[in-house]
Amino acid sequence: MADSVFMAELTWPAFEAKVKANVPVFFPLGTTEQHGPHMAMNVDVVLPTAVCERVAKNVGGLVVPTIPYGYKSMPRSGGGEGFPGTTSLDANTFSLVVRDVIRSLGVKGVRRLVVVNGHFENCWPSVEGVDLGLRELARDGIKDMQVMRLEYWDFVKRATLDRLFPDGFPGTELEHASLLETSLMLLLRPELVDMSKVPDDGPAKFPTYDRYPTPKGFGPASGVLARADGSTAEKGEWLMSDHVELITQAVKKEFGL
Amino acid sequence: MADSVFMAELTWPAFEAKVKANVPVFFPLGTTEQHGPHMAMNVDVVLPTAVCERVAKNVGGLVVPTIPYGYKSMPRSGGGEGFPGTTSLDANTFSLVVRDVIRSLGVKGVRRLVVVNGHFENCWPSVEGVDLGLRELARDGIKDMQVMRLEYWDFVKRATLDRLFPDGFPGTELEHASLLETSLMLLLRPELVDMSKVPDDGPAKFPTYDRYPTPKGFGPASGVLARADGSTAEKGEWLMSDHVELITQAVKKEFGL
Amino acid sequence: MADSVFMAELTWPAFEAKVKANVPVFFPLGTTEQHGPHMAMNVDVVLPTAVCERVAKNVGGLVVPTIPYGYKSMPRSGGGEGFPGTTSLDANTFSLVVRDVIRSLGVKGVRRLVVVNGHFENCWPSVEGVDLGLRELARDGIKDMQVMRLEYWDFVKRATLDRLFPDGFPGTELEHASLLETSLMLLLRPELVDMSKVPDDGPAKFPTYDRYPTPKGFGPASGVLARADGSTAEKGEWLMSDHVELITQAVKKEFGL
Amino acid sequence: MADSVFMAELTWPAFEAKVKANVPVFFPLGTTEQHGPHMAMNVDVVLPTAVCERVAKNVGGLVVPTIPYGYKSMPRSGGGEGFPGTTSLDANTFSLVVRDVIRSLGVKGVRRLVVVNGHFENCWPSVEGVDLGLRELARDGIKDMQVMRLEYWDFVKRATLDRLFPDGFPGTELEHASLLETSLMLLLRPELVDMSKVPDDGPAKFPTYDRYPTPKGFGPASGVLARADGSTAEKGEWLMSDHVELITQAVKKEFGL
Amino acid sequence: MADSVFMAELTWPAFEAKVKANVPVFFPLGTTEQHGPHMAMNVDVVLPTAVCERVAKNVGGLVVPTIPYGYKSMPRSGGGEGFPGTTSLDANTFSLVVRDVIRSLGVKGVRRLVVVNGHFENCWPSVEGVDLGLRELARDGIKDMQVMRLEYWDFVKRATLDRLFPDGFPGTELEHASLLETSLMLLLRPELVDMSKVPDDGPAKFPTYDRYPTPKGFGPASGVLARADGSTAEKGEWLMSDHVELITQAVKKEFGL
Amino acid sequence: MADSVFMAELTWPAFEAKVKANVPVFFPLGTTEQHGPHMAMNVDVVLPTAVCERVAKNVGGLVVPTIPYGYKSMPRSGGGEGFPGTTSLDANTFSLVVRDVIRSLGVKGVRRLVVVNGHFENCWPSVEGVDLGLRELARDGIKDMQVMRLEYWDFVKRATLDRLFPDGFPGTELEHASLLETSLMLLLRPELVDMSKVPDDGPAKFPTYDRYPTPKGFGPASGVLARADGSTAEKGEWLMSDHVELITQAVKKEFGL
Repeated sequence: MADSVFMAELTWPAFEAKVKANVPVFFPLGTTEQHGPHMAMNVDVVLPTAVCERVAKNVGGLVVPTIPYGYKSMPRSGGGEGFPGTTSLDANTFSLVVRDVIRSLGVKGVRRLVVVNGHFENCWPSVEGVDLGLRELARDGIKDMQVMRLEYWDFVKRATLDRLFPDGFPGTELEHASLLETSLMLLLRPELVDMSKVPDDGPAKFPTYDRYPTPKGFGPASGVLARADGSTAEKGEWLMSDHVELITQAVKKEFGL
Repeated sequence: MADSVFMAELTWPAFEAKVKANVPVFFPLGTTEQHGPHMAMNVDVVLPTAVCERVAKNVGGLVVPTIPYGYKSMPRSGGGEGFPGTTSLDANTFSLVVRDVIRSLGVKGVRRLVVVNGHFENCWPSVEGVDLGLRELARDGIKDMQVMRLEYWDFVKRATLDRLFPDGFPGTELEHASLLETSLMLLLRPELVDMSKVPDDGPAKFPTYDRYPTPKGFGPASGVLARADGSTAEKGEWLMSDHVELITQAVKKEFGL
Repeated sequence: MADSVFMAELTWPAFEAKVKANVPVFFPLGTTEQHGPHMAMNVDVVLPTAVCERVAKNVGGLVVPTIPYGYKSMPRSGGGEGFPGTTSLDANTFSLVVRDVIRSLGVKGVRRLVVVNGHFENCWPSVEGVDLGLRELARDGIKDMQVMRLEYWDFVKRATLDRLFPDGFPGTELEHASLLETSLMLLLRPELVDMSKVPDDGPAKFPTYDRYPTPKGFGPASGVLARADGSTAEKGEWLMSDHVELITQAVKKEFGL
Repeated sequence: MADSVFMAELTWPAFEAKVKANVPVFFPLGTTEQHGPHMAMNVDVVLPTAVCERVAKNVGGLVVPTIPYGYKSMPRSGGGEGFPGTTSLDANTFSLVVRDVIRSLGVKGVRRLVVVNGHFENCWPSVEGVDLGLRELARDGIKDMQVMRLEYWDFVKRATLDRLFPDGFPGTELEHASLLETSLMLLLRPELVDMSKVPDDGPAKFPTYDRYPTPKGFGPASGVLARADGSTAEKGEWLMSDHVELITQAVKKEFGL
Repeated sequence: MADSVFMAELTWPAFEAKVKANVPVFFPLGTTEQHGPHMAMNVDVVLPTAVCERVAKNVGGLVVPTIPYGYKSMPRSGGGEGFPGTTSLDANTFSLVVRDVIRSLGVKGVRRLVVVNGHFENCWPSVEGVDLGLRELARDGIKDMQVMRLEYWDFVKRATLDRLFPDGFPGTELEHASLLETSLMLLLRPELVDMSKVPDDGPAKFPTYDRYPTPKGFGPASGVLARADGSTAEKGEWLMSDHVELITQAVKKEFGL
Repeated sequence: MADSVFMAELTWPAFEAKVKANVPVFFPLGTTEQHGPHMAMNVDVVLPTAVCERVAKNVGGLVVPTIPYGYKSMPRSGGGEGFPGTTSLDANTFSLVVRDVIRSLGVKGVRRLVVVNGHFENCWPSVEGVDLGLRELARDGIKDMQVMRLEYWDFVKRATLDRLFPDGFPGTELEHASLLETSLMLLLRPELVDMSKVPDDGPAKFPTYDRYPTPKGFGPASGVLARADGSTAEKGEWLMSDHVELITQAVKKEFGL
């Protein structure tokens, strides 16, 4: 069997050896969510997994399986739960999954963990999951696990954003199914993107509040919050390159690698 | 974009169209668990996913993302939580995940669901998850979802088992990382099997009770509960063929397809 | 006051003395569930309690009160929740009960515990309950509790089964309200059995999957899954004798008594 | 089979018939708790069960199995969790048990329920359990269940208390393992009382607050909060007679029987 | 900035200094609940907060923010959830709030805590909250927190009650929105009392059981369970004086101040 | 009694009348958290309460009691849980509180609700709480509650921010205990601010990831994340004026007032 950066592709003795060597372990958090009429719904699984794979290779680490169902989509950042195909967990459920995986990994000896989030709404319940996991581990006598938790899209150079958005970056929350994600998918899974279906009903103009029940027309009917036209694999490469370089740097710095 | 049997590879409008057509939806339940020194730890993800993929193709259905972290391994059926790499959820967490996914799918219009379990210990918390999901949907006014729930390995012909085990089938519980699973992996992901590492410390001889804490030597040190030698891709093909044929039949019968 | 094997029939100083002597403590898990038109609904309480009483006498142990409400009945093993009188708990509730009782006993000094299950569906949530209980006790600084967990019906000799089923044993799952349970009830509480009401609509022929909602006619209308005719107190005596002998043996072996 | 007031001693068709006749169903709540050096620990199971049995006979009702593990003992009313043998559940666990049993009974058609509490500390989590059970039933479309919830000891005539306590009744909270309970046990299970062991370290003199951790000497070392000397079966009969008469009256009035 | 007895009015360094000095910390538990047609709904917030403020001044302690939403009102002690304005939490929610606040304070170094309850129904879920909080703290290695838990109204002199109720005290449970609470509000927040609206439909005559659903006319329509006429600020002063004196005494005694 | 915008200062009949008139109800969410060495820890209670009070007056609405304990502080936005005095709830606890209050208000007839958050970290668990509350209400048959959910600081004019931050706005996350909050406190509760203690160790320079355990020096030791010098009551007035005007506008628009 070939070596693999994906933990689930290893035998248990191979995994055990890696854990004894204290390699960093990457835990990608995704979801299954509408990403416009031009793109598949696995975007938030594909992207953080790909980032983790590349960074793990850089630092000799491992990637554990990606969570495929995340926290509920919010209208102002992901179109909301009203869209067909968006399939989500309650916050408590999601936090318990993160807690249990972290506890399980900690009990097995993992001491350097990087939680890499790929779905905006996962951010906060994953913070809670990490806190609960570490709290439980401490009660089980394991008090020396080191954790980083991050959103991969925060690791991008100013210059890259400027190159991508000559008219100004609309901000992370609106970047749902838009230029960044579409470009990265064109790089990684071009067969799951159909640029001819890119809608033009964005960018979204949201008020500064949530509204329940979500009114008709609260966001673009397409589910694309900003704009996706102009997406290219090359732009995806710029982004991926930044993500991998900057996260690799941060991981090396934090874990003294 | 090509059509895909995997729901997460569709756009939301494509998914919506399938749901309106009331196609059966398959929900595979796996885990990440040691499967001996000769095989990767994703066996319980790979196998039910592959079964679902094939059956879904037969009936025009869809496969939603496979749960990658399942219920805790028990020593008498999976080697137990003591093995490196086995990464698991508490029963309540697992049941809540199943509940939430079913509720989410039901709210989106799915009315024919087949829960396909690929990890022995998931059986019971998945029963609970289905019950909780349907109870919640009924309270939300959705009372007509039809669900089948099955373990894929129960769909095998007597003749096939006789062919595979001329000396008698040791039973489902001991079939962990053994002939059946190894043969299926040789068929599907041969690069994740190393037959030269197949251990010979089985079959396990368990008492008729659980013991806490798990005593040293309670099961084979390899984690392989029965025997894996003699596994071949051909035998995997026999099994897969049965699984797909018989589950397809059952689904068609139950859903009147 | 006479000595009693039932902990709840002792005073607290008497109980304290037994715990200080580190006697084994037996914890029977039952439920209240239909057992056919010929038998009372307390079968799963009466049987494990009786087994525990006899084994506890053999080893100088104690029996704590039997749980009277267990996990939900499943159609393929107990007729399902649709039957009148079947009164059940959610899995999480049941596991929390088991957890709390174990934690409470552990805090009081019990170090040798035997969980004796008498209701098929309790098996898995009781596994979870034991795990949760021991996890909490460890966090409370109590790390030396020894636990066995068993289904009493697994302690029977091959020869006895052969004597009882000359045509072959139909298997544990179908043995609901059937020959084994009816014979044991005839031995223990004959006034709660009416052999003239034994139905003949079994044995059940279930498919290899669960179905929700349970279709009409999924199992025998009587709730008896196999056959109960031919049940006698004598056969109950054969079974009880095996259960008590083999469990006594196992407990002595595991606890070094 | 003889008819029985205990639901678990009926077959399911017999139970079904009673439910169709809308008979009142009694649900006793007990616990396993120290009751002094002179009495067994099943007092809070024996007493409410006996009360329910008698009232149910009066009104043609049924008694479902008694909960044997109740909410945690509090020092000022039951001696506290520090006593050997007191075996208890967390409040949430206890409330969930009550919720689940009520939901289960409601789904089966029970529409007149009397929850009869026999353990002081169960009072409040049982209130919550009833509320949660009825809330869930309403969501399941069952909105016409009638419930009474009571502590059996509140059904006693002033004259009886005056006869029992010529010097004044010390109050319900201190009546733990004292005159009332001891007399009732002498009536019902005299073999579980040893009057020669009645302690004289009471009555307890508690401050008007709880204290954590419970200080040494916070209550009588015996666990008897008031006085048990002078208890007789005859006094038990006075009490039982009141309990049964007054509860029967109340049930008839509320349910129009 | 002036010193304040209210912790939330301090800066964090000021709070830190107090905690290092191990001052007693008071945690008031209230709710938002109907208190008759003559009084505002914040009675159970105002009263325990005022008591805590005065006692804390006496002993150099601090008062943390008062819980404004408590456990559900019960018809026999607070009129029940049916009244407009009564806004409440489930028992589990309330206990978790108490647990979390206690854990948070304990982790920050608080070692002397007085939980002061001002809403009858909070009593039991607050007992559970304290138990859960201390259990968690112990697991986090903090085992030396001292806690008192009390209902403020239990700290009153016999002579005062006699003065207030020449015809006999009707008892704590009926004292909802009645003489005691109204007098205390007249003392503390007279602008929130309108004596001209005091109803005369009390005192309540409840049976000795709860009834679900609450029947029409189960208690006084006004929500005042006993009588409020005759309330005066002077009587409020008698009460407050007792509460503060006796609680101060108890706190000094228990904490050796 | 005078009319009050604060619901808890009304009698229940007064509240009932307002609810029948369908006035908007405002629900402020705060916490108790360090806000630097120059300011009290009740900032996140005082500010949203004051905003709600003013907006409610504008639209004839009511303000229900402010939640005083919020979700755990995160180092990058509030200094983190390590600071003395920060007293917080787990995410699930907080969401349950929000759920229960919303359910309680909905059952009482409230149909227009504005959840006004004043603590950054409450944002996401309050989203979950609203979702859970509305889900439960729908199951209870109440499907027409209209909810807005907002962070008050998002209601500020561009021109105001430009006036306040001539060198550019550092962003919401860093605005903890800084210019905005300090100015608002100077406006509302000047006695709880001591400008002479404003620290100069900010602004914080955080990496783009969370780190557990929080490393020494991860943020400014003062707990002030940006800069607070230059804060004035006048600037507070600019802000408050914007908040009240813009939220009033939004509420009127959404509720058609």
